[in-house]
Amino acid sequence: MDNLFYLVPAAAALALFFAWYFFHQMMKESEGTVTMKEIAQYVREGAMAYLRQQYRVVVVVFIVLAIFFAILAYGFGIQNTWVPFAFLTGGFFSGLAGFVGMKTATYASARTANATMRSLNSGLKIAFRSGAVMGLTVVGLGLLDISIWWKALDFFVKDADTSHKLVVITTTMLTFGMGASTQALFARVGGGIYTKAADVGADIVGKVEQDIPEDDPRNPATIADNVGDNVGDVAGMGADLYESYCGSILATMALGASAFFGDTAMQMKAILAPMIIAALGVVFSIIGIYAVRTNEGASLQKLLKSLSIGTNLSAVLIGIATFGIFYLVGFENWWQMSLSVLSGLLAGVIIGKVTEYYTSHSYKPTRKLAESAKTGSATVIIGGVGLGMISTAIPVITIAVAIILSFGFATGFSFSTDVLSSGLYGISIAAVGMLSTLGITLATDAYGPIADNAGGNAQMSELDPSVREKTDVLDALGNTTAATGKGFAIGSAALTALALLASYIEEIKIGFGHLAEKGGELADQFVQLSHASIPEIVEKFNITLMNPVVLVGVFIGSMMAFLFCGMTMNSVGRAAQKMVLEVRRQFREIAGILEGKQRPDYTSCVRISTKAAQHEMILPSVLAIIAPVLVGIILGPAGVVGLLAGGLGAGFVLAIFLANSGGAWDNAKKYVEEGNFGGKNSECHKATIVGDTVGDPFKDTSGPSLNILIKLMSMVSIVMAGLTVLIHC
Amino acid sequence: MDNLFYLVPAAAALALFFAWYFFHQMMKESEGTVTMKEIAQYVREGAMAYLRQQYRVVVVVFIVLAIFFAILAYGFGIQNTWVPFAFLTGGFFSGLAGFVGMKTATYASARTANATMRSLNSGLKIAFRSGAVMGLTVVGLGLLDISIWWKALDFFVKDADTSHKLVVITTTMLTFGMGASTQALFARVGGGIYTKAADVGADIVGKVEQDIPEDDPRNPATIADNVGDNVGDVAGMGADLYESYCGSILATMALGASAFFGDTAMQMKAILAPMIIAALGVVFSIIGIYAVRTNEGASLQKLLKSLSIGTNLSAVLIGIATFGIFYLVGFENWWQMSLSVLSGLLAGVIIGKVTEYYTSHSYKPTRKLAESAKTGSATVIIGGVGLGMISTAIPVITIAVAIILSFGFATGFSFSTDVLSSGLYGISIAAVGMLSTLGITLATDAYGPIADNAGGNAQMSELDPSVREKTDVLDALGNTTAATGKGFAIGSAALTALALLASYIEEIKIGFGHLAEKGGELADQFVQLSHASIPEIVEKFNITLMNPVVLVGVFIGSMMAFLFCGMTMNSVGRAAQKMVLEVRRQFREIAGILEGKQRPDYTSCVRISTKAAQHEMILPSVLAIIAPVLVGIILGPAGVVGLLAGGLGAGFVLAIFLANSGGAWDNAKKYVEEGNFGGKNSECHKATIVGDTVGDPFKDTSGPSLNILIKLMSMVSIVMAGLTVLIHC
Repeated sequence: MDNLFYLVPAAAALALFFAWYFFHQMMKESEGTVTMKEIAQYVREGAMAYLRQQYRVVVVVFIVLAIFFAILAYGFGIQNTWVPFAFLTGGFFSGLAGFVGMKTATYASARTANATMRSLNSGLKIAFRSGAVMGLTVVGLGLLDISIWWKALDFFVKDADTSHKLVVITTTMLTFGMGASTQALFARVGGGIYTKAADVGADIVGKVEQDIPEDDPRNPATIADNVGDNVGDVAGMGADLYESYCGSILATMALGASAFFGDTAMQMKAILAPMIIAALGVVFSIIGIYAVRTNEGASLQKLLKSLSIGTNLSAVLIGIATFGIFYLVGFENWWQMSLSVLSGLLAGVIIGKVTEYYTSHSYKPTRKLAESAKTGSATVIIGGVGLGMISTAIPVITIAVAIILSFGFATGFSFSTDVLSSGLYGISIAAVGMLSTLGITLATDAYGPIADNAGGNAQMSELDPSVREKTDVLDALGNTTAATGKGFAIGSAALTALALLASYIEEIKIGFGHLAEKGGELADQFVQLSHASIPEIVEKFNITLMNPVVLVGVFIGSMMAFLFCGMTMNSVGRAAQKMVLEVRRQFREIAGILEGKQRPDYTSCVRISTKAAQHEMILPSVLAIIAPVLVGIILGPAGVVGLLAGGLGAGFVLAIFLANSGGAWDNAKKYVEEGNFGGKNSECHKATIVGDTVGDPFKDTSGPSLNILIKLMSMVSIVMAGLTVLIHC
Repeated sequence: MDNLFYLVPAAAALALFFAWYFFHQMMKESEGTVTMKEIAQYVREGAMAYLRQQYRVVVVVFIVLAIFFAILAYGFGIQNTWVPFAFLTGGFFSGLAGFVGMKTATYASARTANATMRSLNSGLKIAFRSGAVMGLTVVGLGLLDISIWWKALDFFVKDADTSHKLVVITTTMLTFGMGASTQALFARVGGGIYTKAADVGADIVGKVEQDIPEDDPRNPATIADNVGDNVGDVAGMGADLYESYCGSILATMALGASAFFGDTAMQMKAILAPMIIAALGVVFSIIGIYAVRTNEGASLQKLLKSLSIGTNLSAVLIGIATFGIFYLVGFENWWQMSLSVLSGLLAGVIIGKVTEYYTSHSYKPTRKLAESAKTGSATVIIGGVGLGMISTAIPVITIAVAIILSFGFATGFSFSTDVLSSGLYGISIAAVGMLSTLGITLATDAYGPIADNAGGNAQMSELDPSVREKTDVLDALGNTTAATGKGFAIGSAALTALALLASYIEEIKIGFGHLAEKGGELADQFVQLSHASIPEIVEKFNITLMNPVVLVGVFIGSMMAFLFCGMTMNSVGRAAQKMVLEVRRQFREIAGILEGKQRPDYTSCVRISTKAAQHEMILPSVLAIIAPVLVGIILGPAGVVGLLAGGLGAGFVLAIFLANSGGAWDNAKKYVEEGNFGGKNSECHKATIVGDTVGDPFKDTSGPSLNILIKLMSMVSIVMAGLTVLIHC
């Protein structure tokens, strides 16, 4: 059965091979005219310049944190000695995935525009397969990292008790998730601020004040806007999902090793299952990618359907295969466990559909929102906020049902304390199910900004308007997939965070193990606690909702979600104001820009976004890392669990609200632009532009950053569990 | 010591006497010119017409629920037989308090305007003392209701075991809180929708489209707007705080009876203490009210100071008296318990100050927000959302510290499970401390809409502009006190809800008692559970954060806060759109309105607001009542506690965010109107008007309604505890 493990590195290799292959195929295409190449080069340089800046900050943070962990591990002996390295590799691979994805995207946009001149199908193929490079790189690097550490720790960790060894290996591996989380944090927050500062700034002066269209080459902020799509929506999204992907697999492995402690064979099965589901998910993702094709002159509905065929095919295949996997691996309750996985898969699909319903202008909510523009921008804002808040109901209930079902199937619907561990394993593997086809779902996501940039390139290169029309069709498709992708990212983050919350208790036990090794009077008691069950640890620290410390944690966790959002929101506001002033200055001081006789100074706008993002991302990021540490030190494990639960509850709902409000505003504007309620340049249209602009940081900065916040706070708590235990025992 | 109890009805009588006296004094003043009387009459009629409509719906709801409780009590025997009556009196007294307050306010506004012609001091005195009528009526009726039920149940409840009798009495009394909650729900939601539909509608057409000033008699929605101030800000706020006031006292009594179960003498002390603190609070509130006076020509700063002197004096006096009360009542740890109360008092003051900092344009945040209007309405909205979210940090940390301190002082800073009951009693009595001076704090709150209406009356009666200037000073003061009042209402709601959360476990035990009485095989076990400690009940239902059912509850609770907000937000949006269309129609169809030659049709606007509020309040209200019932039936007590904790965490933070964003937008507009960044009628000003309009439902509908939601969900759960236990045991 151990041989099944080799499916994992094999799948990693397969994913990376196809990523390389799709990249290679794309690079063979022509980038088009000289102007097109030039524009693409501008965007590429801007994106790389930003990424360099961001990585410079990230490297410093990583060095500081790695030293800190090394001190905890080697100085105080309350941390596993492998953690500093695991932390660094997690960050490195996450950064690498973002880099590859973004590099690909910036090469692909002009090529997509050029191919679209030939045919819509060619354009779709290039954009989508370039998106697949990102998707496959993320899953490939994720599985590679997991495989390497699994083998390395298996070799290096010495423990006479095999069962205990498995627990140590899996909980150690979990900490490389913190590296991925930390890197994702900066990518999401920094990228999110960058892209929306440019977008909001460009829109306010361009569309509202000067009445020039989107992506007009006369707008000085237009290159920065296109760069932003790449650094925010491609690199940021990739790092986010890399983290969810690895986090869910690693948490499931750790929970499996713990749930079946004492039964080595069963532990191995429980550890292997999530890895193999993920490995087969890669294969089915590739099959799905090949299934995406369309005819010339396809409507938006048709295009959407062709993408759906790909993602649904992958989901159905993995759904069926899951039964085989659990059977082969040798689970007694193989079909029940498979139903747990299906709960996760299905929840992902439902959340995607609901997101589409609330944010697409094919449906009533967004159309009504557009209509509310008849009474001005204030009612559009009020309506959008209301819509977003209401839209949280079904996704939350869906996740709630998925939690109950995935737990219930794994335990035969017992909710008593003695089956807690296997139930939590069930929830965790549902998250793996949801994310198993990430190779293709991420492709549909990363495809969006590529199509968007292709349109930008076409507009700025002043190609024939028919090309822009075609890229607009691709772009509109991208908007819908981006919205469903966001719902998916949030849903998977919630399930992953839930799995991490359970893993936290495991890490507390490991912390007791470290304390026991240090000897002393209480050593015996610590040894006992290091082998305690989850309910015993819960009792030890009184992690019940009647404990005021837990409730205080819940309050602070809820508040953290809002505070973090508010900070990133204000960052965008401040940076956008700078951008507006610069663009206004250029229009005023550089003669001939508006007549198209003089090129605006694109690089100064790129510089403003880069600087603002780099500067503004630091405070919220540091806050997200420090808050769980402080709560751990002051309030102990009970406070930490409260913090994580409160942050997860409020953060999950807040993230859906922000994403859907933003998505609906965006499409309400598009609906008006299609000629409804007065069409372009009417008072209605102006009102919806205000909504769209407000929605930008909602859906692309603050909302998505919350995914990271809820996972990162769990990861930080996990890594700091040893210190918390040391202080509070 | 039992004689100390008579302080409570005495204080109730004193409060009601002064309320009557202040009302009488105010009525002796002249209402001014014929036009002033006429306008006041319009507003009075509109307000009463609305209240009649609202009470009609409420009466139906109350009858249905009372019948339902009667069936549970008499049919199934799983509910105390007094509950249907307790429920009805709670609702009746709450409604009566709102009615008296609103009646007073609508009589006071023209009189305030008229007195202001004489002198600023006279105006302030009338407005403030009329506000005090409301404040004193609320506390007077609250204490009266508590006194009557205490004596009645003491007489009627037969139980050989005195200690058990005390538990039964106090937990039964708790359920009249649900009556108050239900009535408050409709008052807050209906009133909030009414007032903001009118306000938003009036602003959009009046200020934005037609450029006519606020309260201009040419605006058809202006009477509806003034009516709205009364039904929303007076009646709604009064019902809300009536509920917090009674809820905190009753929860403390119930927790006290339970914490010292078995020790009758100590139980009596613990039951008496909160009542006596509240009773003395009445006396000190009246002293504080008399301390508020000002000089002619006083600046806003001076006026604010004179109000602060009143509220601070009351707070300091009750703070000192608390030590005496606990000593006299005979608590061994009298000074520690007093420090618990002080934690609550101090938290209230800090939250008020922080609210002022974030929402007053004397400070940086709101000024910066006003500046962001230079780049348009979108950046104002983004900035206001960011500001509101960030402003949640300090209030949450303040409440967190107050929770830890008030628990800690009561238990000698032990957080182990065996001191849980006394610690929760400490938290609960901190809430009583915070609310003890409600007589005066509510007066400063209810004063605002009276001054606002006085200004409206002066404008519409076309009095000399100098009168409007003076009432504007009074109104500006009202805006600040309204903002701090909101912070106070939210903070006290959070602490009250926390106390109710703890009381829920008590009610579960009472539920087991009812099951035991029904006999059967498990009767012995039920008897045992009915005498269990809080930790034992927690263990029985596995109310830990590792139980997926609890976590699902947390998710749903967080979602409920957003869903409820979204629904009320959309209600305002829809109603405001109707109002806008009607006002536009009148301007179009009735010739001569804008020239002032023809009176607009005020009543049709009043009718729109009334109808919309009545129609729109039903769905969110029913949802708030049904959700905890359904969660109880499906998920059991563990799910309910999760629901309450999640709803409390997310709801508390969301409420602060909405209140402060709204307050800051309002004052940012005022700051621009004072001549900054271009002043009135500049582009900046228009942008801030959009912010102000969006902020209206934030701060006056959805935000305040959340206070009720978090308390009501607890109350419903408490009342339904018997049914939940029946189903899940």
